[in-house]
Amino acid sequence: LKLAIIGWGGVARSLASILADSVPAHHFEISGILRRSGAACGVVDPAAPVFGAPMPAAEFLEACHADILVELSALNPHSGEPAITHIRSAFERGMHVVTANKGPVAHAWRDLAAAARAGGVRFLHESAVMDGTPIFNLFRHNLPGVRLLGFTGVLNSTTTLVIEAMERGETFEEGVAQARALGVAEENHTFDTAGWDAAAKTAALANVLMDADVTPTSVDREGIQGFSAARIRQLSAEGKAVRLVCRAQTTPEGLRLSARPEILDRSDLLASSSGTSNLLLFHTDRMGTIGAVSISPTVEQTAYGVYIDLLDLVRYPAL
Amino acid sequence: LKLAIIGWGGVARSLASILADSVPAHHFEISGILRRSGAACGVVDPAAPVFGAPMPAAEFLEACHADILVELSALNPHSGEPAITHIRSAFERGMHVVTANKGPVAHAWRDLAAAARAGGVRFLHESAVMDGTPIFNLFRHNLPGVRLLGFTGVLNSTTTLVIEAMERGETFEEGVAQARALGVAEENHTFDTAGWDAAAKTAALANVLMDADVTPTSVDREGIQGFSAARIRQLSAEGKAVRLVCRAQTTPEGLRLSARPEILDRSDLLASSSGTSNLLLFHTDRMGTIGAVSISPTVEQTAYGVYIDLLDLVRYPAL
Repeated sequence: LKLAIIGWGGVARSLASILADSVPAHHFEISGILRRSGAACGVVDPAAPVFGAPMPAAEFLEACHADILVELSALNPHSGEPAITHIRSAFERGMHVVTANKGPVAHAWRDLAAAARAGGVRFLHESAVMDGTPIFNLFRHNLPGVRLLGFTGVLNSTTTLVIEAMERGETFEEGVAQARALGVAEENHTFDTAGWDAAAKTAALANVLMDADVTPTSVDREGIQGFSAARIRQLSAEGKAVRLVCRAQTTPEGLRLSARPEILDRSDLLASSSGTSNLLLFHTDRMGTIGAVSISPTVEQTAYGVYIDLLDLVRYPAL
Repeated sequence: LKLAIIGWGGVARSLASILADSVPAHHFEISGILRRSGAACGVVDPAAPVFGAPMPAAEFLEACHADILVELSALNPHSGEPAITHIRSAFERGMHVVTANKGPVAHAWRDLAAAARAGGVRFLHESAVMDGTPIFNLFRHNLPGVRLLGFTGVLNSTTTLVIEAMERGETFEEGVAQARALGVAEENHTFDTAGWDAAAKTAALANVLMDADVTPTSVDREGIQGFSAARIRQLSAEGKAVRLVCRAQTTPEGLRLSARPEILDRSDLLASSSGTSNLLLFHTDRMGTIGAVSISPTVEQTAYGVYIDLLDLVRYPAL
C-alpha cells in the first residue's frame, strides 16, 4: 500500500523509521511526503527523503497516487485546518486516511465520517487522543455491543505539569516552560492552560464513541488560571490535588460535556495521573467502568499508534 | 453456533440472559448445560433450562453436538481441574473453547494452546483476568507487533478489601467477611490472602502475553498475613498503602514473576485501586507503558467478556 504523508515533524519521522524496520509482510511504501518547505513524490526513501519545491496539498495528493493519506500536519488547533481540508481531499480521491491530529475529529467528525462512508474508504485516528494508547480501537474491536454512557479523564499533560510545578513552589510560567521542554505544550500555551486542548479531546471522544455532533466550543470549559500557586500549594498541604478533568455524561437533558479543573483527593485515581501520564475512564452499560492509562508517552508511541492504524487497514479490511 | 455450557453459576446465568437479549445477527443457540446436579441437552431455553440426570463431562460434550464449549465450572484453584480436562476434551472433538476460568490459562496454557492449534480451533479466555476488561484482546487486536516486556498490577480484590478494612480499624477476619459478602473471596480465603490468586493471574498473563511456560508455583509469592492490622493502620497514618502487587520483569536471567505485598505512597497509581477495582500496567517495547483499569466489576461484566469472546469467533474467524 502506498502512503502519502502530509507533515514531516517528530511523529512522521518516527513513523518512517517504524516503517523502515517493519516486517515485509506488512510492507507499506511511501510514495510522497509533503511539508511546508517542499514536496517529495514518487518512491521516497523514508530514511533520506529528497524534497523538491513546495506544492499545494491537493496537487500533491493527485501527483503521488497513494492509497492512504497519513495526515500529520501542524494545524490550527482552533479550527482543525488545514488537516480537515486535506482529509476531505483524500476521501474525494478514494484514499483511506490515518491521522494523529485530534482537530479533524473534534471539529468535523460527522462530515468526515460521512465522506469516508460515501467513498467506501476508512478514517482512522487512534493517536488523536492519548498518544496511541488503544481507545478508539478498544471500542471498535474489543467492546462490541457496549454502549458508552460517559467518560472521565485527565487528558491534558501541560496543565498537570504546571500544577505539579506550582505544588513544588515554582511559578505558572516555570511549569509552562517545563511542559514546552517536554514537547507537550502547544506554541500558544493558553490552548492548554485555558482548557481548549482538553475540550477538543472531550469533543473528539464524544463524537466518535457517543455519536455526538459537537465541536470544542460545545464543551463547558474552564482553564486552570483561576488557581494561584499559593492556592495549589495550600490544597497540596491538605492532601488535595487539582487536575483538569474531561467529563461526558448522558443526562435526561442530553449529553453534558465539560473540561474543568477539579479538586481531588490525592488518593483519587484521577489525581494519580502525574506528569505527562493520562488516564481515561469509560462508563458503559454492559462493561461497567473500565479505563485506559498511558504513562509518560513519547512521540514514538504516537507514531506507533499511526502504524497500528495502517496495519488495521490490512488486518481488518472489511471494517 | 451451538454452545455447550459447563457450569451454571452466576457468570453462566448472566451469560444466558445476555444471549437471550442479543440481536439475532449474532445468534447463538444453547444446545446443552451441564452442572453438578444434572444435565440439559438438546435445544435449551436459557431462561428456564430443564435439567435431567447428571452426566460425565465427556459424555455431555459428545451428546450435545455443540460448536463451542463455554467452560464456567467451579474448579480447584490449585490445579485448574476439572476445567483443563473439559477443555482438552472439547478440543479433541473439534470445538472452540471460551472460558472465564483463569486456572486452565495459569496451569496448562502451553498444552491447551497447542491442542487448539492442532485441532484448528480457538481458545479464548478474556474474562480469566480482570473480569472481562479487554486485556488479551487488547494485545491480539490493538497492539500488533508490540512486545510485552513486563507488567505491574493490582489484581486481587480480596486482599485490597482486607487491607482497607484494617485501615478502618477492623480485623483481618472482618475484611475477609466483607470480601465474601461481595462475592470476590474464594471459599478458602487463603487462596486470596496467601497470594495464590494473584500468582495464578500473574502466571496466566505471562503465559499468554509473554510466551512463558509457567504455573502459579513459578511465581515468587507472599501473602498479606505478615501485615498486622496495627501495622496497616500505622502505614495509613504515614500516607502509605499496602497492596498485593503482581509483577513480571524481563531480566538478563530470564522472566521474573512475583506476587507480593508492597508498601506504596497513597498517591501511587497502584495504591489508587481501591475496593474491588483492579489496575494493570503493561511495560512494552514500542507502546511505552499503558494500562487497563476496572472499577468495581460485577459478574455481569465477566459474563459480557465471555460474550465478547463468542462474538470474536464470529467477527474474526480467521484469527
